Amino acid sequence: MIEIISGTNRPGAVSAMVAQWYQALLQQKGVESQILDLIELPEDFTVSALYDSSGTNKGFNALAERLRHASKMVYIVPEYNNSFPGVLKAFIDGMDYPSPFKGKKCALVGVSSGVQGGGMAMSHLTDVFNYLGMHVLAQKPRLAQIEKNMANGQLTNTLYKQLLEEQVEAFVRF
Amino acid sequence: MIEIISGTNRPGAVSAMVAQWYQALLQQKGVESQILDLIELPEDFTVSALYDSSGTNKGFNALAERLRHASKMVYIVPEYNNSFPGVLKAFIDGMDYPSPFKGKKCALVGVSSGVQGGGMAMSHLTDVFNYLGMHVLAQKPRLAQIEKNMANGQLTNTLYKQLLEEQVEAFVRF
Amino acid sequence: MIEIISGTNRPGAVSAMVAQWYQALLQQKGVESQILDLIELPEDFTVSALYDSSGTNKGFNALAERLRHASKMVYIVPEYNNSFPGVLKAFIDGMDYPSPFKGKKCALVGVSSGVQGGGMAMSHLTDVFNYLGMHVLAQKPRLAQIEKNMANGQLTNTLYKQLLEEQVEAFVRF
Amino acid sequence: MIEIISGTNRPGAVSAMVAQWYQALLQQKGVESQILDLIELPEDFTVSALYDSSGTNKGFNALAERLRHASKMVYIVPEYNNSFPGVLKAFIDGMDYPSPFKGKKCALVGVSSGVQGGGMAMSHLTDVFNYLGMHVLAQKPRLAQIEKNMANGQLTNTLYKQLLEEQVEAFVRF
Repeated sequence: MIEIISGTNRPGAVSAMVAQWYQALLQQKGVESQILDLIELPEDFTVSALYDSSGTNKGFNALAERLRHASKMVYIVPEYNNSFPGVLKAFIDGMDYPSPFKGKKCALVGVSSGVQGGGMAMSHLTDVFNYLGMHVLAQKPRLAQIEKNMANGQLTNTLYKQLLEEQVEAFVRF
Repeated sequence: MIEIISGTNRPGAVSAMVAQWYQALLQQKGVESQILDLIELPEDFTVSALYDSSGTNKGFNALAERLRHASKMVYIVPEYNNSFPGVLKAFIDGMDYPSPFKGKKCALVGVSSGVQGGGMAMSHLTDVFNYLGMHVLAQKPRLAQIEKNMANGQLTNTLYKQLLEEQVEAFVRF
Repeated sequence: MIEIISGTNRPGAVSAMVAQWYQALLQQKGVESQILDLIELPEDFTVSALYDSSGTNKGFNALAERLRHASKMVYIVPEYNNSFPGVLKAFIDGMDYPSPFKGKKCALVGVSSGVQGGGMAMSHLTDVFNYLGMHVLAQKPRLAQIEKNMANGQLTNTLYKQLLEEQVEAFVRF
Repeated sequence: MIEIISGTNRPGAVSAMVAQWYQALLQQKGVESQILDLIELPEDFTVSALYDSSGTNKGFNALAERLRHASKMVYIVPEYNNSFPGVLKAFIDGMDYPSPFKGKKCALVGVSSGVQGGGMAMSHLTDVFNYLGMHVLAQKPRLAQIEKNMANGQLTNTLYKQLLEEQVEAFVRF
């Protein structure tokens, strides 16, 4: 089971939509997946699920458990202030033992309203995941100016579609 | 007024102690400062102070206001999973307009239990702050294996003391 | 005297042209500058000017000397393979003591044929220069798809012009 | 055939020694490898093998050809000025088509005289290789203070030995 993480708790985030596109692409390859939307994080998780409280928040634990059972992970990473969302990193910081990342493989997709497409965000996240022992797929599509490249909830940019399909292709074999 | 940010909401964090050392060093130079400890963040700030709720959380606004009034900032940055704490980034992500960072100058101090001293965390944070228009002092001391280099709440490592003093010296002139 | 470094030894590089635009912008502010083009590097400098041969190559020394006498530096950084040119880094690696960077201030301009504009290249270079004790201006314009945004050797993109002018403005005060 | 690249052209570099240790470790696993030492680079390669001269230097081509035939690669990366050596990057910049990296897998080993162990250098290199389509193994051992941890050309630090063995183990399965 591949877990697709929508990397923000922002209500109505484009990342959640990208996660659905990604799920459809995986489905076309016959690969099962489910979406973990960070909007499901408990409101007070930065206090109730981190540090000495690590492992004690049931709502948080349920999400962590899903990562633990994932065979592979896909992270949809919106660009916030030239890096990944703080909330995504706090989610990672809250992980208890055993690590849900060690020895696993993941793919990253960058999303931004601006022209960068989350390249730096994905570089930072690669530093984090590699440190935690998770391999990161080389292909990291950057979906820049995302709002201009979608309509009615669908991706309209042909190059972006192709990049995602190539990533899925490579990720299945990774 | 220099604002010293203790970059985590972890109860009993070493970073809060480092912030106090830093304040003392600034005081020796006759420079006024105050400490902004991220433990003061509202428990639910990742929901109540971000995105569409940006600017509506009074507790969060009070902290943001202090950054806005700061002439310069010092960030004590504990290393979490080879980057900065997610909570610190979420705090930055919650900043409303006008930006408290643009055109300002800051200094970074890395802290870790392990051997790295937060070098990568400070590199990532430099990417964020530069993007937001805040200049970062070149000197970024890495206080690695911090627990082994302090006793009774005081820094015992002479090299670390010297690095912090040199940073303060450079920061005052920056 | 501000030294503007064209960060590649590629013959006919766009970076050399950008260096000239930059010099003109500085001149408009009444600031004197000169251009150090890495095409002037001795052909065998990676052997004859590095390591044990450090300081023994006259051609290389002349360039290093210019950095040493610079009050500030501007680096025009073309994006090669998602980082700075290896030649630029080898030039930096060849610097002998005293360091021409320590305590100095610099500005970075990214240039690319592709859509990224050298953002990652400038991030990497910031890590290098901060380590060497040189402060980096927060503003780092990314001149992406440069060939499409110039004509007859002149910059035609109005936004890019504005970004460069704002950088010059900030750099003079930095 | 695994190609082990000693990532500097410095005469007598420790990296060349580390490359030999690595080859011995691979041999113990029954894996064939050969060492590509960047000291073999033509002295003037930054002029004669890059840009318009790309593909025309026979000495350089022979090295590039070895990368092309490699099934996997191991990079021994000495830390120079908080990044990878410029010479290593210039070697990469000189690669002609077809790319020797695309779709391949590699492992990185950091080496430094100082306390950092090349962590930042390997992060930068990961950005480069991922961009070029080469997957990077998550485990990236940092051999800090290398001179203090070797004697008579042999590695004496038990932790370092273990980290290298674990990396080899993971790399063979990667």
